[in-house]
Amino acid sequence: MNIVEIIEKKKRGLELNKEEIYYTIDGVLKGEIKDYQMSALLMAICLKGMTAQETTDLTLAMRYSGDVLDLSKIGCTVVDKHSTGGVGDKTTLILGPILAALGVPVAKMSGRGLGITGGTIDKLDSIPGFSSDISEEDFIRQVKEVGMVDAAQTKNLAPADKVLYALRDVTGTVDSIPLIASSIMSKKLASGADAIVLDVKCGSGAFMRDEESAKDLAQAMIDIAHLAGKQCTAVVSDMNQPLGYTVGNLLEVIEAVHFLAGKKQDSRLYELIKELSIEMFVQSDEYKVFQQKINSEINSDNKSIHELNSDSTDSSKNASGIIIGKLGREESDLSIDLRYSLNKLIDDVISDGRAYKKFKEFIAAQGGDVSFIESLEDEEKVKGIFEDEIVEPIFASCSGVIKRMDADLFGKASLALGAGRITKEADIDSLAGIWLDKVVGKEVKEGERIVTLYSASKEKIQEAKEILEGAIKIENWH
Amino acid sequence: MNIVEIIEKKKRGLELNKEEIYYTIDGVLKGEIKDYQMSALLMAICLKGMTAQETTDLTLAMRYSGDVLDLSKIGCTVVDKHSTGGVGDKTTLILGPILAALGVPVAKMSGRGLGITGGTIDKLDSIPGFSSDISEEDFIRQVKEVGMVDAAQTKNLAPADKVLYALRDVTGTVDSIPLIASSIMSKKLASGADAIVLDVKCGSGAFMRDEESAKDLAQAMIDIAHLAGKQCTAVVSDMNQPLGYTVGNLLEVIEAVHFLAGKKQDSRLYELIKELSIEMFVQSDEYKVFQQKINSEINSDNKSIHELNSDSTDSSKNASGIIIGKLGREESDLSIDLRYSLNKLIDDVISDGRAYKKFKEFIAAQGGDVSFIESLEDEEKVKGIFEDEIVEPIFASCSGVIKRMDADLFGKASLALGAGRITKEADIDSLAGIWLDKVVGKEVKEGERIVTLYSASKEKIQEAKEILEGAIKIENWH
Repeated sequence: MNIVEIIEKKKRGLELNKEEIYYTIDGVLKGEIKDYQMSALLMAICLKGMTAQETTDLTLAMRYSGDVLDLSKIGCTVVDKHSTGGVGDKTTLILGPILAALGVPVAKMSGRGLGITGGTIDKLDSIPGFSSDISEEDFIRQVKEVGMVDAAQTKNLAPADKVLYALRDVTGTVDSIPLIASSIMSKKLASGADAIVLDVKCGSGAFMRDEESAKDLAQAMIDIAHLAGKQCTAVVSDMNQPLGYTVGNLLEVIEAVHFLAGKKQDSRLYELIKELSIEMFVQSDEYKVFQQKINSEINSDNKSIHELNSDSTDSSKNASGIIIGKLGREESDLSIDLRYSLNKLIDDVISDGRAYKKFKEFIAAQGGDVSFIESLEDEEKVKGIFEDEIVEPIFASCSGVIKRMDADLFGKASLALGAGRITKEADIDSLAGIWLDKVVGKEVKEGERIVTLYSASKEKIQEAKEILEGAIKIENWH
Repeated sequence: MNIVEIIEKKKRGLELNKEEIYYTIDGVLKGEIKDYQMSALLMAICLKGMTAQETTDLTLAMRYSGDVLDLSKIGCTVVDKHSTGGVGDKTTLILGPILAALGVPVAKMSGRGLGITGGTIDKLDSIPGFSSDISEEDFIRQVKEVGMVDAAQTKNLAPADKVLYALRDVTGTVDSIPLIASSIMSKKLASGADAIVLDVKCGSGAFMRDEESAKDLAQAMIDIAHLAGKQCTAVVSDMNQPLGYTVGNLLEVIEAVHFLAGKKQDSRLYELIKELSIEMFVQSDEYKVFQQKINSEINSDNKSIHELNSDSTDSSKNASGIIIGKLGREESDLSIDLRYSLNKLIDDVISDGRAYKKFKEFIAAQGGDVSFIESLEDEEKVKGIFEDEIVEPIFASCSGVIKRMDADLFGKASLALGAGRITKEADIDSLAGIWLDKVVGKEVKEGERIVTLYSASKEKIQEAKEILEGAIKIENWH
C-alpha cells in the first residue's frame, strides 16, 4: 500500500477500503505521509466525495487516533447533543438541566470556542468560581450524584482530526460534507456517548447556508453513527437570525437563567429546546419507563389523552419556523399521545422549576457561585455586573416590523466586540456581546432601542456598529 | 489575493486569471505558498481542468520563472521538435542532421533522461570525445557554422516547473493534460524556439495510452504555442511497440548511423522521420524558397509533378500505421504536388548521404570521434565494442508472425538492464539495452533469435528476461 496509489484511487472516484483509510490516518500522525500528500487527498475527497462506509472508516480511524472515553461506568445509555454551531446558541446550557432533571445522565465534554463567541465552556467560565477542569473520577461521580457534568476537553481526543482540520483550513478543503461529518463525529464518538442528537444549523450564520446541504450533512453524520453502531437523530434548525435574544458569553448565561427561571423565553429558542429535549429523551433508558407508563394509562382509560386535551396548545407544531427538518427517525414512531405526553413532560420540567434547580445544582457541583446565578434574575444587579463595560444602544431608524437580523453579521459583530477569539491563544471578554431588545417579527417604533452592544472599548463598539449596518431590516408601512 | 481563495476558485471549476496564476507560481518559488497548498491546487486542476488561456498563463508563468534563451542572434526562424517520450525514440539523432543538411538551423538544448533509457544527451555521450557542455557563444557560433548543435541544459530553465513536477510525482497529480502540457511547453518556450513540432506518443510505452488523450494533449500544447504567439504542429505516433530496432544509448546511436548511412532503415521509424522532417521544414524560412521553386516549376510545365510520377511510391501514405494523427495544420495546406516534392526532398537528403555527412560534421564540431561513428557501420567492429558486455539472446518459442512487442515492458527491461536511471544521480550504462533482431510483422521460425539483451551483469539480464516474459506475442499457424 502506498499513499500515491491511494490518492490516485480517490482521484478516479473509487471507494477507499478500511485498510487504506487507516493506513492514511496512521501515516499522517506518524509524519510518514506528508502534508502535501494529505492535502492532495483532501482535495480529491472534496471533489469526488466519499461513501457512507468510507466516511465512517475515516471517522473511526480519527476517533481511535487518540483517547476514547469509557462512560460505561455510568451504567446506562449516555445521550449527547452536538450543534454544528451558530450565533447565540446557548441550547447546551438549557438542555442539560432539563434532561438531568428527567433522570437522563448528562456527561458532557465541551471545547472552548473559536470564532464568533466562546464555546459552552467559555460561557460557563463567566460564572465566578465555576471550574471545568475535572478528573475522570470526579467526572463519573458527578454524573452519578448530580446527574450532569460539563468538563473541558483535557484528553487527547481525535488528534488526527486536529491535523486534518488545520490542513483543510489553509488548503481550501473545508467545505466537504464527508470531511465535516467525519471531523465532528470522530470527536463525538471519542467522547463516549451511546446516542447522539445532532442540531444541524442552516442559514446565513451557519456553516451550511442552504437546507439541502444541511440535510446532507445531517444524513452523513447519522449514517456514520449508525454504521458505528450508535443511535443518532438530527434536527435541522434555522440560523438566519441569532438564536434567542443574546449573543456572547455571560449574556447567553443570563438568557439561559431567564429561560429556566421562567422569566423570559424566546419562542424560537423554546421550540428548539423542546424538539431537542424530546429527541434526547426518546433515546434514553428513562424513555422506556415513560413509554410503558403512558401506554398503560391509555389502555386503562381506553381513550386517547390527546383527545381529552385537544383544546390545549399542541406544542409539537413549528410555530416560529425554526425547525427546518428532522432526520434519522420516522415521525410516526411517536404516536400522537406519546408526542403530546412528551411535550407536556418537557413543558412541566421547565415550568415547575425542576430544570432550573438542576442547573444550580450542576453549577454548584463544579464550584460555581449559585448566588451569582440567582442575581442574574434581577435587572438592577445585572446592570451592576456590566458597570465597567461600554454599553451602546442601537435605535430603530423607522417604525415597522423587524423582518431580518442577519445571523452572519451579528456573529461577526460579536467577534469584533471581543466575545469570540480568532486564534486559540486569544482571550475572551466574557462580558462582551449583543443583547437583542427586539427580535425578528416584533414591531418597533422609530427611535426605539432594538439592539444593545457590550464591549470593553469604544473602538470595538465602533467596529461592531459598522458590521451591523444593513444587518437589520425593518419593513415599515404608511 | 490569497492562495486559499485561488484554490477554492479552481475547486469550484472557475477560470483563474493571469494575475492569480503568476501570483501562485511566484509564491511557490519564494516559498510563501506552501507545498501542501500547491498540491491541493494541483489536485483541483487535475479534476476541474484548465482552459487554454489558463494553461497558457501557467506555461508562461513557469517559463519566466527562470532564464529564457535568446536565439534571435541566429537570424532566422528556429524550429524545434519535442517528443513526449517513448521506447527506442532516437528521432532527434536523425532529424537534426536531415534538417541541418536542408539549411534549417538546429539549435537544440536537451535534457538528460530519467526512466527507461537516457535522453538524447546521454545517447550522444556514448560517443567517445563528444561534449554537450557548450558556452552560449559557442552554441550560437556552431549553429551558424555547422547548422546544428545539441547542448545539455546548463541554464536555469523553468525552475517552477521542476518544483511542480517533483510535487506532482508524489501527490498523484501527474496525469492532467493542462499540467503535462504546461510543463513541456514552459521548457520549450524557455529554450527559445520560434516554431515547434510535437511528436506525441500514444500507446503502452507512452504516457498517453489512448488516441483520444494523446490528441487532447497535442491540442493543449498547440493551443499554448498559438496563444503564446509561436508556430506549432503535432504528430501523434504509435508507441505500442518500440520505435525502430534498438532500445538503449549507444545501441540507438548505432541505429541512427545505420539509418543515415542507408544500411538498415526500420520502415516505421522511416515514416515517422519523414513526417516530422516535413512538419519541421514547412515551418522554416527555407520552406518559403522551396515552395516558390516548386510552384514556378509546376507553372512553367503547366503540369502536375505528381502526375508525372504517379507510378512512384507515394511516401505520404502511412503504410506501417505509425502515424495516428496530425494536428495544428490543415492537411490541405500542402498541395499534392508540394507534398510529393517534400517527400522527395527528404528521401533524397537521406539517400544521397548529405544527412549522414551533416551528422558527422555535428559530432566532430562537439569533439566526438568520427572514426568511431564510421566504425559503427561495421558489424565486426560493433561486436568488439560490446566485448565486455554480457550479451544474451532470446529465441522464438514457436514459428509464426510477431504480432506484439509490448513497448511498456521493453522500456522496463531496458531500465533493468542499466540503460536508464531511476534517480537523477544514478549512472547510465551506455552499452546496455535491447537489440530487436525481429520487429512486429516479421516472420520467425522456432528457435530463431528475436531479441538480444546487453547488460553489465547476469542479474540484470535475468531481471530483464523476467520482465520480457509475455512481452512478445507470436501468432503461429498449422
